[in-house]
Amino acid sequence: MKLRELAELLDGEIRGDETIEITGATGIYDAGEKDITFLTSSKLIKELRISSAAAVLVKDFVPDLAKTQVRTKNPLYAFAKLLNHFYVRRIGPGGISKNAFISGEAEIAPDVTISDFSYISCRARIGSGAVIFPGVFIGEDCVIGHDCVIYPNVTIRENTVIGDRVIIHPNAVIGSDGFGYVFEDGRHNKIPQVGNVRIEDDVEIGAGATIDRATTGTTVIGKGTKIDNLVQVGHNVQVGRNVIIVAQVGIGGSSNIGDGSMLGGQVGVADHASVEAGTMVAAKGGVMGEVKRGVYGGAPMIPHREWLRATAIFNKLPELKKRIEDLEKRLSLLEDSE
Amino acid sequence: MKLRELAELLDGEIRGDETIEITGATGIYDAGEKDITFLTSSKLIKELRISSAAAVLVKDFVPDLAKTQVRTKNPLYAFAKLLNHFYVRRIGPGGISKNAFISGEAEIAPDVTISDFSYISCRARIGSGAVIFPGVFIGEDCVIGHDCVIYPNVTIRENTVIGDRVIIHPNAVIGSDGFGYVFEDGRHNKIPQVGNVRIEDDVEIGAGATIDRATTGTTVIGKGTKIDNLVQVGHNVQVGRNVIIVAQVGIGGSSNIGDGSMLGGQVGVADHASVEAGTMVAAKGGVMGEVKRGVYGGAPMIPHREWLRATAIFNKLPELKKRIEDLEKRLSLLEDSE
Amino acid sequence: MKLRELAELLDGEIRGDETIEITGATGIYDAGEKDITFLTSSKLIKELRISSAAAVLVKDFVPDLAKTQVRTKNPLYAFAKLLNHFYVRRIGPGGISKNAFISGEAEIAPDVTISDFSYISCRARIGSGAVIFPGVFIGEDCVIGHDCVIYPNVTIRENTVIGDRVIIHPNAVIGSDGFGYVFEDGRHNKIPQVGNVRIEDDVEIGAGATIDRATTGTTVIGKGTKIDNLVQVGHNVQVGRNVIIVAQVGIGGSSNIGDGSMLGGQVGVADHASVEAGTMVAAKGGVMGEVKRGVYGGAPMIPHREWLRATAIFNKLPELKKRIEDLEKRLSLLEDSE
Repeated sequence: MKLRELAELLDGEIRGDETIEITGATGIYDAGEKDITFLTSSKLIKELRISSAAAVLVKDFVPDLAKTQVRTKNPLYAFAKLLNHFYVRRIGPGGISKNAFISGEAEIAPDVTISDFSYISCRARIGSGAVIFPGVFIGEDCVIGHDCVIYPNVTIRENTVIGDRVIIHPNAVIGSDGFGYVFEDGRHNKIPQVGNVRIEDDVEIGAGATIDRATTGTTVIGKGTKIDNLVQVGHNVQVGRNVIIVAQVGIGGSSNIGDGSMLGGQVGVADHASVEAGTMVAAKGGVMGEVKRGVYGGAPMIPHREWLRATAIFNKLPELKKRIEDLEKRLSLLEDSE
Repeated sequence: MKLRELAELLDGEIRGDETIEITGATGIYDAGEKDITFLTSSKLIKELRISSAAAVLVKDFVPDLAKTQVRTKNPLYAFAKLLNHFYVRRIGPGGISKNAFISGEAEIAPDVTISDFSYISCRARIGSGAVIFPGVFIGEDCVIGHDCVIYPNVTIRENTVIGDRVIIHPNAVIGSDGFGYVFEDGRHNKIPQVGNVRIEDDVEIGAGATIDRATTGTTVIGKGTKIDNLVQVGHNVQVGRNVIIVAQVGIGGSSNIGDGSMLGGQVGVADHASVEAGTMVAAKGGVMGEVKRGVYGGAPMIPHREWLRATAIFNKLPELKKRIEDLEKRLSLLEDSE
Repeated sequence: MKLRELAELLDGEIRGDETIEITGATGIYDAGEKDITFLTSSKLIKELRISSAAAVLVKDFVPDLAKTQVRTKNPLYAFAKLLNHFYVRRIGPGGISKNAFISGEAEIAPDVTISDFSYISCRARIGSGAVIFPGVFIGEDCVIGHDCVIYPNVTIRENTVIGDRVIIHPNAVIGSDGFGYVFEDGRHNKIPQVGNVRIEDDVEIGAGATIDRATTGTTVIGKGTKIDNLVQVGHNVQVGRNVIIVAQVGIGGSSNIGDGSMLGGQVGVADHASVEAGTMVAAKGGVMGEVKRGVYGGAPMIPHREWLRATAIFNKLPELKKRIEDLEKRLSLLEDSE
């Protein structure tokens, strides 16, 4: 692809040779002589100068750079588009395998791919263009929207409702029982989990993640939310729209995560917590109760700035203790001399 | 169902109209006009008053409530019974699918359901009434008790012994190798993991949880214990009876968790730790060594009350440091003036 | 097996009766009268004396022990060899099941076992002696070396390259999409993940672990590295050789873990961190930035010794605060008396 065409595709402005041929897009370190790369931080200009890349996507032209540049509003977004252009082949439609099980009562739209060893239960409905890899289980009365991708060995239990363009990565589990028991007669008695899960449009669920069904009612993952690998979402949780949930986060039952929030890796959210829209919690944070919009860290979490300061002093606690002991000695001396 | 019959089922006492017809049971917020709901905290009386529910399960009658009430010893337990009554349909028996693989040397009791694409290895024994969903692997010489439910894509490796009425949620793994190596000759050499796992009656294992087999001997999950999603139990761990283990807990090798203990979400237990019966550890706690019965928090954990106090001061460490600096200045002034 | 032969196998020296017959190897507590056990810590000599074991592997002969002893350089390593000798049966070759799907374009070496309900995609290549259990998915263009074991319900996505003698435990996921989005036009836009994963020789990947493919380029797990259950490795991570990664660790994107490092359970590593070879991080530690070789603890982590000291004082913070208040009062008194 000529650089000129590529710039048009990205609505970008070229500084340099617009006739060069670009055959791939990749990171600064890996780029070959026919690749275009991207710059998101001025810290990497040094690496960019010695990169083999033929051209680079930038937000602002870099002075004195011996490389053709393409200026674009959001270089990373432009780069994502190029990865799509150069490398992503649309999967399917591969048709319905005769080695899959499809209930006679299931409704399968046109252009659906269902691979070997997948199991589609009674009354499940699969929207057009969906691609279902091998080893997937889809329970009774599930609804899957159009153009979804369900990777291998995913389990989706009964009554789950999934929107359009949802991607569910391998071995994830949707609609497992919530963790609810009541202690009586000397044992933990199971509270039946008879609600369901609704996953809205454009959501991604990471590999090995688990989303529990509601006890009664519905566990909801809002439109455009992205959930990383090995995340646990408890029963009756309400996750808003465009939320980012990094790997290994655990969200306790009945919690509420507001639109556009971001939870860092290994964050834990207690049962019945409520997080306002636009909140950010740093990795390993512990979330409880009602949380106002803000940036937080620590477990239990506090405002992130305060947490950074407190942590810095924590590391010096032995010194602080020594200063207190020193004060005590000096003060005793003074008191004695009175 | 008439409320009168429902109250009889629950051994409850009615205040109000015993002739009303109840068609479902659900939470306070979701309840419709023919539903019964439940009250477990007086904080929710306000919500109860504006709920559409026709009736409510209570521990003590609420004064001035314009709703029919059913008094019962444990309203949540009664509610669990109603969920069972109204919504839970017994799964199976669905027979043995011809699209499953069943070893000729396996022993399958009557009334067992084995679904498509499940694999039952040599000499495995499956008890009566067990329901095995699609994509399950059961290894050689496994024993599964009666009335178990094994959800899709579960893996149970060889020699695992499972009691009666055990529920294993989707994509869980039972009997995977313990993590044991010995460093010699410049590399980590695998210590063969030749023991097994025993899961006693009435246990639940969460979605995506992993229970490792013992190096030699047996990893044990005691009767009535409930394990949430994405929990890791290491080799040779002994978990007692009626233990509650919340999501994403990790238990290191050879540890011992006493009967009736509760481990909060994301708790970590070090190798060779030993926790007395009835111990509670708050979410994210770190457990090491020998732990006496009590309530703990923090990592490494300390008694929960102390941890709360220490944490409150941690958050004020910058202020405390300033007070020390202030003391130092004032003391120096005083010393100089002597 | 006569003890004499056993000692020859282990290059060990016998003190006691070399004619006794040994039929098994097991831990001190479980040992029967024909078993050999091992001693790795002098703390266990008391238990050893009352153990039923016929013989024991030791590093140095224990005085006054009424048991036959076999002295060997590394008793645990010797024990591992005996477990192998007594208990481990080589799995397979079981041939290619007609209930598996094998693409006509896949290349399958001799002596490969492929079980029912496994799916081998186009152009995948499987090396000799590999054993693939039921329910495994292997994507297009994957390369699997010789003598690998892939346990049930594992998913390996396209273009993954796996070396020789690699063991992948049940329900693990290799090559899932990295977690990369760019926010633009009011939504999180997916950055296509078009790189791959390379797993070198002699690696083990734990049950339910997830290893993400690179955005562009390759996520690498170095030779001899051992990864425990439910670990998450992000896109473009470079893990060195002989690294030990304990259960539930999460490693953020583009991080680098040096050779021979050890990450304790539930450790979190931030994006773009870099850890020097030979570094150890205690359980639950938080790793960020550039880390020099050393032993660390805490989140954010600090040198382990400092962390232990700071933690000890943390637990006493209420007392420390009281001492400060006391100093303030005494100092005020003194100031007033001037």
